[in-house]
Amino acid sequence: MKLTILGYHSATPRENANPTSQVLEIKNHFFLIDCGEGTQVQLRKHKVSFSKIKHIFISHLHGDHVFGLIGLVSTFRLLGRTSDLYIHGPKGIQELIEVQLKLSQSRIDYNLIFNELEGNQSQVVFEDQKVVVTSIPLKHRIYTNGYLFSEKPSERRLNAPASHDAHIDKAYFSKLKQGYDVTNNLGQLIKNEEVTLDPPRAKSYAYCSDTAFSTSIVPLINKSNVLYHEATFLNEDEDLARKTLHSTAAQAAEIAKLAHVQQLILGHFSSRYDDEDRFLKEAGAIFKPTFLAENGKVFEW
Amino acid sequence: MKLTILGYHSATPRENANPTSQVLEIKNHFFLIDCGEGTQVQLRKHKVSFSKIKHIFISHLHGDHVFGLIGLVSTFRLLGRTSDLYIHGPKGIQELIEVQLKLSQSRIDYNLIFNELEGNQSQVVFEDQKVVVTSIPLKHRIYTNGYLFSEKPSERRLNAPASHDAHIDKAYFSKLKQGYDVTNNLGQLIKNEEVTLDPPRAKSYAYCSDTAFSTSIVPLINKSNVLYHEATFLNEDEDLARKTLHSTAAQAAEIAKLAHVQQLILGHFSSRYDDEDRFLKEAGAIFKPTFLAENGKVFEW
Repeated sequence: MKLTILGYHSATPRENANPTSQVLEIKNHFFLIDCGEGTQVQLRKHKVSFSKIKHIFISHLHGDHVFGLIGLVSTFRLLGRTSDLYIHGPKGIQELIEVQLKLSQSRIDYNLIFNELEGNQSQVVFEDQKVVVTSIPLKHRIYTNGYLFSEKPSERRLNAPASHDAHIDKAYFSKLKQGYDVTNNLGQLIKNEEVTLDPPRAKSYAYCSDTAFSTSIVPLINKSNVLYHEATFLNEDEDLARKTLHSTAAQAAEIAKLAHVQQLILGHFSSRYDDEDRFLKEAGAIFKPTFLAENGKVFEW
Repeated sequence: MKLTILGYHSATPRENANPTSQVLEIKNHFFLIDCGEGTQVQLRKHKVSFSKIKHIFISHLHGDHVFGLIGLVSTFRLLGRTSDLYIHGPKGIQELIEVQLKLSQSRIDYNLIFNELEGNQSQVVFEDQKVVVTSIPLKHRIYTNGYLFSEKPSERRLNAPASHDAHIDKAYFSKLKQGYDVTNNLGQLIKNEEVTLDPPRAKSYAYCSDTAFSTSIVPLINKSNVLYHEATFLNEDEDLARKTLHSTAAQAAEIAKLAHVQQLILGHFSSRYDDEDRFLKEAGAIFKPTFLAENGKVFEW
């Protein structure tokens, strides 16, 4: 999996401070996650092919996560897009886009398919043979979901020399990969684990922005490879975090620790702090494998 | 008058190609004209004080002229604005902004006052003691107005030595400035022009984007100091201009010549042309005092 940070600041876009947006590459998908103002320019800057984006996941309808969406939808039209575009997000996102298309008298020549989320339970948002995306209900001032992007476990790998030695006919190989025991050419039952290897571990990415500190998400994101968790404030401003339903760096680290993830990425920093390394220091003291989001930074795992 | 170009490209925002937006300083007003995506970042980059902007004039509801407006309106809120904001633009602009505020559950703490334009006659859009703004009905695929920003003629200037020699009491000076003849201390009638000087010529700026070639605007912008006229295409693509209701550089120059303006600024160039100097060459052959818009470029007159 490969994550590219297109923007990671809270609130207002500024020179060199783009609001939240990320691209996640997973099993040949290019998922766009959130879409603050200026995201389309960031996509160009970091050379992400527009045509590869088929699914957009929006966490909530605050401007710093969604004001760039109508521009991107319109640019797709101007570029002559014909393939379907799926927009997953909170109820209301369809109205948000359609009103703007109506008022600009823009006819979209591709299918724009909205998947509006409601309710406060985690749900499957997207699924295909290799990937499943589930929502992570978050606690914010407005209806908000994070997203868990997971590879599905792949098939077991054949241990070729062992299966040869065990006199198994090729016709049974696909059954072996699916985990079944099989009968060999000599009529003997061969245990699956004798001739196959474990598949590579399925990977996952948990995206959680924006949210107050909430341990209720821990079971949902448990043992994720990578967790992006917002850290709008430092602990010295915990009262502000509580008031605005945001998190501090220490709180994000606490969640990472409780959920036994492998890596934590912090973002959504408030512009009140000049030195972003303070976020790293505060979170790193609680959860060592912490990293800061940066414009254009790529994480691979 | 001072005009700062914040963006001047057509269609999609790209790296170093911002969609249309300008700031006009006129008699202590800072008028924002059009507001494509990313305008708030351009304002910061070119150090235009956000709090000075009290009036925004939108030509039409195509994205490259208006998708940055909701972000700016939201940023004003986050910055704690309390002063009124007037948005002048086509009917529908109120719905465009209010739907987005509703869906993001954003309460605006300042007065947001919409002045929606309808109809195809030129009308007064804004007026105070020193400035008048009138609409310039344009011919585009969607309802569109340009704007003529004009200083009002100021008072006549007193010729101090002449009025002293003419024995005029100070009490009559304001009448003199208003152009009246007055009676002096000796009971003689003094002709106004003997003791006053002409006021400085009132200045104006005509903004015309987007539009097909249309001579019907000529009387409205006649003798403007500066005309901004869109030039999306070169004459070699006149068929495209006709089809999309845009103009060529030559057509823009033709309008400038017919209207006897002093200077022409071209913008809204299509990204199909690598060399923008071709616009200058094409228009300059018809109307010599032609200039190209550039990011951050300032015109003063």
